[in-house]
Amino acid sequence: MLIDCSKASPQELYRILLGSVVPRPIAWISTISETGVPNLAPFSFFNAFSANPPILGIGIGSRRLPDGSTAPKDSFNNIESRGEFVVNVVSRPLAEKMNLTSGEYEPSVNEFEVAGLTPAVSTMVAPPRVEEALIAMECRLFQVVPLGGSNLVLGQIVCIHTSDEVWKQGDIDLERLEPVGRLNGSSYCETSVRFEMPRPRH
Amino acid sequence: MLIDCSKASPQELYRILLGSVVPRPIAWISTISETGVPNLAPFSFFNAFSANPPILGIGIGSRRLPDGSTAPKDSFNNIESRGEFVVNVVSRPLAEKMNLTSGEYEPSVNEFEVAGLTPAVSTMVAPPRVEEALIAMECRLFQVVPLGGSNLVLGQIVCIHTSDEVWKQGDIDLERLEPVGRLNGSSYCETSVRFEMPRPRH
Repeated sequence: MLIDCSKASPQELYRILLGSVVPRPIAWISTISETGVPNLAPFSFFNAFSANPPILGIGIGSRRLPDGSTAPKDSFNNIESRGEFVVNVVSRPLAEKMNLTSGEYEPSVNEFEVAGLTPAVSTMVAPPRVEEALIAMECRLFQVVPLGGSNLVLGQIVCIHTSDEVWKQGDIDLERLEPVGRLNGSSYCETSVRFEMPRPRH
Repeated sequence: MLIDCSKASPQELYRILLGSVVPRPIAWISTISETGVPNLAPFSFFNAFSANPPILGIGIGSRRLPDGSTAPKDSFNNIESRGEFVVNVVSRPLAEKMNLTSGEYEPSVNEFEVAGLTPAVSTMVAPPRVEEALIAMECRLFQVVPLGGSNLVLGQIVCIHTSDEVWKQGDIDLERLEPVGRLNGSSYCETSVRFEMPRPRH
């Protein structure tokens, strides 16, 4: 089948993208609003892009209001106004709590409370990190790239918290981190079925 | 542990990022050079960012030359000079061939031949797609965002090829696509261990 993107609807394209670009890592992003309300929400249009300097990016779309119009998501508003955010890593035991924070709540709602999570004071940025997360990356806004209906938010990582239990001589121990990936629909994947392929030498 | 990114080396940060942002989807990118040589190489600093318009992005670093200096990767040179590329999806049965294309070959090498893959004529762009891939997304260069040592390449998807066997009423059937994800070191993951979490309503 050939899908011509100039003729498909955004909803059709969204469903095809969600099933074609898989598995996606999850950025569980904590921010605070201008008035100081913490926010926590997961995003899977997310990846690292560079190590020197350490840069990651998140595509953030809009939310649909009850009257059918759209508005920027709280996470985007908070990142724009405060210039800081934290990316927390979602391990398998935290997946259900992460999912609780994925609902579309009013800006006044603190998703840490909704999910029963502990906000821990960050080291170099104002938004709290998720204390229960085994890895948390504190970020400063690097650049916003407008993409039309969405924005690509690029952040420079300023410091990284890693729990001792996942730290293995400079590498992250994925057996202990148990990261989960996002698939399409309501589906997620574990990363427990692994295989090794050394890069070819020639 | 707290890692201060202003004090860690790029190599240390790279290893931490590879283990913290997981699982990563793989963009198996086909391009052609100015002189017409096809190129095929996998990248995992990759994701979709927007459906309207359909935009995806890939972080592309440099390659290290024998004399220790660095140069842009062939894929980046080809995308910049021709403005077009194809993102092919890596299913589990194609993983070993994908890995064969991950070596650092000279620009004159055609990785389709190295891996025994069939270049298929694309519909709307000049670079060939991988005929064996069950999904291929033809892209035009949308924007290059310089990140320091790397470049973030943003592409707008113009059309998508999907094999009939993975197409299920507008969605992609992941049981049949069998996509693989990139972890750290030499590790990859399958996406066969799935779980469902419907988004909360309130």
